Amino acid sequence: MDETVIGDHRLGRRTFLKRAGLVGAAIPMAGGLIAAACNDDKPAASKSVDYRTPEPGAATAKPATGASPAASATAVSVADQIDNDHKKAITDFLANQKTPLTKGKGNLPLEPTIENGVKVWNLTVDEIDWETVPGKVEKVRAYNKAVPGPILRATEGDRVKVNFKNNLTESTTVHWHGITVPNSQDGVGFLTQDPIRPGASWSYEFTLRNSGSHMYHSHHNSMDQVNRGLLGAFIVDPKDKASYPKYDREFIMVLNDSLLGFTINGKGFPATDALVVKKGERVLVRWLNEGMMNHPMHLHGMPMQVFAQDGYLLASPYKCDTLDVPPGNRFDTIIEATEPGAWAFHCHILSHAESPAGLFGLVTALVVTE
Amino acid sequence: MDETVIGDHRLGRRTFLKRAGLVGAAIPMAGGLIAAACNDDKPAASKSVDYRTPEPGAATAKPATGASPAASATAVSVADQIDNDHKKAITDFLANQKTPLTKGKGNLPLEPTIENGVKVWNLTVDEIDWETVPGKVEKVRAYNKAVPGPILRATEGDRVKVNFKNNLTESTTVHWHGITVPNSQDGVGFLTQDPIRPGASWSYEFTLRNSGSHMYHSHHNSMDQVNRGLLGAFIVDPKDKASYPKYDREFIMVLNDSLLGFTINGKGFPATDALVVKKGERVLVRWLNEGMMNHPMHLHGMPMQVFAQDGYLLASPYKCDTLDVPPGNRFDTIIEATEPGAWAFHCHILSHAESPAGLFGLVTALVVTE
Amino acid sequence: MDETVIGDHRLGRRTFLKRAGLVGAAIPMAGGLIAAACNDDKPAASKSVDYRTPEPGAATAKPATGASPAASATAVSVADQIDNDHKKAITDFLANQKTPLTKGKGNLPLEPTIENGVKVWNLTVDEIDWETVPGKVEKVRAYNKAVPGPILRATEGDRVKVNFKNNLTESTTVHWHGITVPNSQDGVGFLTQDPIRPGASWSYEFTLRNSGSHMYHSHHNSMDQVNRGLLGAFIVDPKDKASYPKYDREFIMVLNDSLLGFTINGKGFPATDALVVKKGERVLVRWLNEGMMNHPMHLHGMPMQVFAQDGYLLASPYKCDTLDVPPGNRFDTIIEATEPGAWAFHCHILSHAESPAGLFGLVTALVVTE
Repeated sequence: MDETVIGDHRLGRRTFLKRAGLVGAAIPMAGGLIAAACNDDKPAASKSVDYRTPEPGAATAKPATGASPAASATAVSVADQIDNDHKKAITDFLANQKTPLTKGKGNLPLEPTIENGVKVWNLTVDEIDWETVPGKVEKVRAYNKAVPGPILRATEGDRVKVNFKNNLTESTTVHWHGITVPNSQDGVGFLTQDPIRPGASWSYEFTLRNSGSHMYHSHHNSMDQVNRGLLGAFIVDPKDKASYPKYDREFIMVLNDSLLGFTINGKGFPATDALVVKKGERVLVRWLNEGMMNHPMHLHGMPMQVFAQDGYLLASPYKCDTLDVPPGNRFDTIIEATEPGAWAFHCHILSHAESPAGLFGLVTALVVTE
Repeated sequence: MDETVIGDHRLGRRTFLKRAGLVGAAIPMAGGLIAAACNDDKPAASKSVDYRTPEPGAATAKPATGASPAASATAVSVADQIDNDHKKAITDFLANQKTPLTKGKGNLPLEPTIENGVKVWNLTVDEIDWETVPGKVEKVRAYNKAVPGPILRATEGDRVKVNFKNNLTESTTVHWHGITVPNSQDGVGFLTQDPIRPGASWSYEFTLRNSGSHMYHSHHNSMDQVNRGLLGAFIVDPKDKASYPKYDREFIMVLNDSLLGFTINGKGFPATDALVVKKGERVLVRWLNEGMMNHPMHLHGMPMQVFAQDGYLLASPYKCDTLDVPPGNRFDTIIEATEPGAWAFHCHILSHAESPAGLFGLVTALVVTE
Repeated sequence: MDETVIGDHRLGRRTFLKRAGLVGAAIPMAGGLIAAACNDDKPAASKSVDYRTPEPGAATAKPATGASPAASATAVSVADQIDNDHKKAITDFLANQKTPLTKGKGNLPLEPTIENGVKVWNLTVDEIDWETVPGKVEKVRAYNKAVPGPILRATEGDRVKVNFKNNLTESTTVHWHGITVPNSQDGVGFLTQDPIRPGASWSYEFTLRNSGSHMYHSHHNSMDQVNRGLLGAFIVDPKDKASYPKYDREFIMVLNDSLLGFTINGKGFPATDALVVKKGERVLVRWLNEGMMNHPMHLHGMPMQVFAQDGYLLASPYKCDTLDVPPGNRFDTIIEATEPGAWAFHCHILSHAESPAGLFGLVTALVVTE
């Protein structure tokens, strides 16, 4: 929050990639580190490695228990297939950091306009095609044609107004999950308002009374609408920044599952963005679960310090390397980026992250450059 | 716990409704508030609303991406169907607060008799018909013919005895989940006792040594028996009330899922009870998960302060608006009822709470009257 | 950690059983206690019990609501079947404490050799047959032919080296879950190393920088490989033991689910090991979830004090009787063994623990002997 703090999501895409060393004429730092870490280009530098890929015949000579030579021959093919698929997924992920493999990018900041001292955002609600992983295009619903919708961000005490135009063929409402608003602005269909009909517009207006990592999403036919993409982050910075931890870099991680597959910020691995940071930085990661399942997010190499839940600072922060994020919860965490390298960062429900065809879904990497 | 504290569950149903302003000749406060909040009667008072339901033709004029006019015509019908169903669910819920839509009510207090200084309850175990939501009647198993069974409540240090008569066609046992009892009274079939055969009786007797929000339920063929209703709350008030937070009103929320659907206190939305409170009150909500799934319960408008887990006071309470309650856990929470209105209060696993046919299951509302 | 502390897993199986009084000429204490607790041998001593198994005719005379006599006759048979199955499961569990009902035992300590001041372990990776519950043999993958693999244990600051020989017909890698290692040793296929091909060997070497209850497991095709058994505990004792709670006895509980069924330390109930302790002991239980589901582990009779998560001491420990352990997390807990008896200790997702055929899966017992 001080002058040196710049959230990545406040920068344009190109600026972000440039900082991360992933575009431009100079040898890309992070890209180089990733390449070094990946044996695609050169072997991992480990003095203790005694690596040798045996000839197929060697494997046949020492078959696994009960495997006949014929079965082994087939098994080696299976091994090759698994390895090739796993390698392709990682290679694709690295390539995605330089040139996105999928069309469309969500979870980007949207500056408000100021009208009579009120911060105003204009959002549309559309049904669009959205590429979650390379080649997989889904019919989704989206705010401003992106999943997640734009990051709305303001400061405690601000008066804000958000105008919606519903271009869907069904009604919708918008709920400000975690934000204390007047009941009339709470966005629950038929309980606090009539839903916004197809073709209609609706405005919400309120003063931000509580800070934190919050969310906005549909609260009408929401099992379908939220799962299909009507969701976004709403970050309310505290007025008094003294009590909030200092950080050098920031990431907002919106988790989703079910109807559009397992996604972080609208994309499944290998189309997810790496978190590229510099060694020594204090990295703020905000977790927002918009899905229907718990996701225990596991960071390799370093722990996370959990210091806020649902926007409320914990009296007693705690460290972990696996943070279970239930649906609807938000956690603010700090990572001290002490360990250089490309560190896997994924849901530890393994069926959300890896199959015999390789890593997929709720997987990314924290890349700590030196 | 002081003189001003009166748990709703200690009152009869009529008294509860009267206090909540939901019966009687006077204009009902909460009912009025709910009605005001619900556009069924009059539109939500929002100065920022630019609401207009377009003509079907208008929607057709601006079809969603790729939708043909014919498809749009169908889509509008779908929109109407979704809206009508959603509205009916809310309307039914509001009606349910005045006149219950389902037969039977569980989770009601049962005063013990005193025999030689021992608090004694007599419970039957029956298979009965139970209406979980309007029109859906299930074969359940129940203590004293209600789901959940009666609330047993006593004070730390009390000697208690609970007599059971098993009218089922299968054996059962009763486990005092969370309560420290002698091993012989722990109720685990064939480990601490022979099960209570069909037609047989059994008594449990022990001294309450630890306070808290506890549970009693079957521990024999329990996956089936607990899921089908053999469960209830056992509240042990602390002997020394000084360390327990003060509160003005209290609710006990027993969650269940699976075999009888998603229920709060034996009923699914719209047959669930609203939590009706007055602005300014400190509201104690006790969460007891008797189901087989985690339920992240989300309160709109205000946070919950979590101060006890499984009856043990937390050294470091924390605030949240979404509280993940795993099976078997109990959490004691305080809500400061600062925000007037009808606030949705539901599981944020959206498939436990809403479908295209509207809200259902683990949904209720906190109604804060002024 | 002081001189009086002896983890059971550091003892051989026979020593463990002998201490627990489960083998040898003397009347076995724990066995006797279990037998006493189990009505198989003699009825539970309860003054309040009014137990009488009615004649079949008696049950028929008081049928459950709506049950015809004929239906009741059938129902009694169902009741008998349920009871017999439940009794057999408990009886088998007790028998298993004396003579294992299944072949193979995992989660046993493996002493390292010392080479130039480095602690060295040699592990194989094999496909083997593994009996998870009596009579159910699965094709699993295993480190050193046991599930879980051997317990690796060293002290913060130690230099360690682990050599693997891959005898599988597919590639693998090993990830040191929770341990801060150089990126090159992190074991993520194609991100930090090429996978270890069938027939190949690989060595990992690093200095232990953070203490705690950690894990090692495959990180290549891991949804399949970890689920099928490529997992083990890695305990790093703190260099400075002053800040770590004192304990008298220790258990390491590795949870798994999915492909091999619900298992604790590679076995499902009734083949699970009881936790046999003496009254008054402080018992350390380390929870390690290697599965794909949350497991809320419930202890009857006494609470657990949770004091560390993922190896990091909590600033504010908390008590509970039900501890939800998400996939990938580890919790260190202390049980004050104050209550004598045989206490059920199980996952409270009841479908992971009991069916009409009796207790199964994630179930064991804490046996507190006097």
